[in-house]
Amino acid sequence: MPARFDLGAKPHLGYTASALDRATELRQDKAAIAALEADAGARAFLLSGELVALHKGALQHDPIFTFAEAGALAPCSDRIFLGLRAGAPLFAILIDAEAAEALKRHDDLLVTDLRSIATGGLVAAEYLPPLAQSKAVVGWHARHRFCAKCGAPTEPAQAGWRRDCFVCGTEHFPRIDPVVIMLAIAGERCLLGRQPRFARGQWSCLAGYIEPGETIEEAVRRETFEEAGIKCGRVVYFASQPWPFPMSLMIGCHAEALTTELAVDRAELEDARWFERDEVAAMMLRRHPDGLIVTHPVAIAHHIIRAWLESESTV
Amino acid sequence: MPARFDLGAKPHLGYTASALDRATELRQDKAAIAALEADAGARAFLLSGELVALHKGALQHDPIFTFAEAGALAPCSDRIFLGLRAGAPLFAILIDAEAAEALKRHDDLLVTDLRSIATGGLVAAEYLPPLAQSKAVVGWHARHRFCAKCGAPTEPAQAGWRRDCFVCGTEHFPRIDPVVIMLAIAGERCLLGRQPRFARGQWSCLAGYIEPGETIEEAVRRETFEEAGIKCGRVVYFASQPWPFPMSLMIGCHAEALTTELAVDRAELEDARWFERDEVAAMMLRRHPDGLIVTHPVAIAHHIIRAWLESESTV
Repeated sequence: MPARFDLGAKPHLGYTASALDRATELRQDKAAIAALEADAGARAFLLSGELVALHKGALQHDPIFTFAEAGALAPCSDRIFLGLRAGAPLFAILIDAEAAEALKRHDDLLVTDLRSIATGGLVAAEYLPPLAQSKAVVGWHARHRFCAKCGAPTEPAQAGWRRDCFVCGTEHFPRIDPVVIMLAIAGERCLLGRQPRFARGQWSCLAGYIEPGETIEEAVRRETFEEAGIKCGRVVYFASQPWPFPMSLMIGCHAEALTTELAVDRAELEDARWFERDEVAAMMLRRHPDGLIVTHPVAIAHHIIRAWLESESTV
Repeated sequence: MPARFDLGAKPHLGYTASALDRATELRQDKAAIAALEADAGARAFLLSGELVALHKGALQHDPIFTFAEAGALAPCSDRIFLGLRAGAPLFAILIDAEAAEALKRHDDLLVTDLRSIATGGLVAAEYLPPLAQSKAVVGWHARHRFCAKCGAPTEPAQAGWRRDCFVCGTEHFPRIDPVVIMLAIAGERCLLGRQPRFARGQWSCLAGYIEPGETIEEAVRRETFEEAGIKCGRVVYFASQPWPFPMSLMIGCHAEALTTELAVDRAELEDARWFERDEVAAMMLRRHPDGLIVTHPVAIAHHIIRAWLESESTV
């Protein structure tokens, strides 16, 4: 590997650095999966759509259930083998929306969404990556109960990692949508945008789905031009992050802006503008005079912006 | 952008560097699309599954048809707006398999697959990126005629860039599967593998689909360990390439091998082994005494390997 490729240490991004061994070779082995489910050490997360069930704790909450606990709380609709956690099998148990709502009435449980869990630090950090993994796969099952090729109902297979159509024989695998998320840089300024759904005062990187027939770099240039009218030259990959809302892979980049005159697409963005380095530093430190802030550190956008702030040189 | 992020010039990869303006804002505008279709300058590719129709030429062939030519040759089942080519609208016209077979009987046409077109240099280089774009979207339509959520038939929308379900209201967008493709490096050696479907003597990078809940870097480490038993540390992004066979995005990386003892997964690979730098150079130049070769330059694997060969330093 050429030494010039060394980008140095990467930040720790939310939902990454999973300690789980996915043990993917076991998925096809029904007997092995059954044995793991029967294992006294088997544990599971309990999920339904956006919701995750947690045992309430004093400081942090606990997302881990035994199969007996889970079975007593709600009927299981799907079960996904996530992998081995220090040798012990970990599953995601999918329950239906009604059952999840009913769990909210249990005083010893907290039933909330993954974003709140991550940004609030509600569980130990080690659980965030497998919870993200669970949410993405559980969400994929919920949206893919039928065969896109022939319309027939499909059945889960491979311990929850495939859905099979028994009419036309198609095997369907979990879908991931690759998304570019980028910071365009012009001298000492960077380009940030605001989506209408953002919290008051929050600004972030621009982002968009990669299209068929595009590279990462081409998607960065196209999206930056479409959303803000800015043409970009050089594009440099920074880091990636799984983003299970519902099933994206965020691919973070820095981009060299070749133009600076903005033409904001108001259908996509509430606003976009250039920010000076000092202003972004104040936003990062939550000391901006107008209360402007950047995205929470759980999201890669925060780290893309921070890496630029912390760099000494510019494009 | 930090100067240390500068990876220098990237190679030209097959199917990349499209000269097309996708003009995505027009897709939602039915009147605009109808006007583009009626434009005297409108042109189209003619595709069916793996097959592309070309006008035969003396040196290179021509994939461009007028709407009148296309209509006279075969009935159109779907039409996709690809974008503007030097201001003129370009479409992909999908014809059915039977019609494509019938075109093979026309003496003035060559009907062949995109791989053969790309590796054989059968058309001008500028056409490869929009042909890749076409093949990916056309293939997506063919495999997504029904709603994965409710099973009802879906209808094309947004000039071919969306399929809508009128029963449950779900909007479906083209799917892209992100794939990691990597070269693990241990000192002066790199790890190459052979899939059973490879041409005789051909070796390439290992590769695999990114899973939900994984980063690019985590997927590189998991796949390299699963397929070859090698643990990797540092992973460095190299470049990306759309790969419409059927709908992948190849994400190329170099990886630092932390171990060297191989445990090849024979279900995935015919073989995998370490290659010395000199041997790989001979393969790249097609001068290997046993006739071993690396992947064709149309694929990113070739360039991932070449970048390592051309680098002076190692991990």
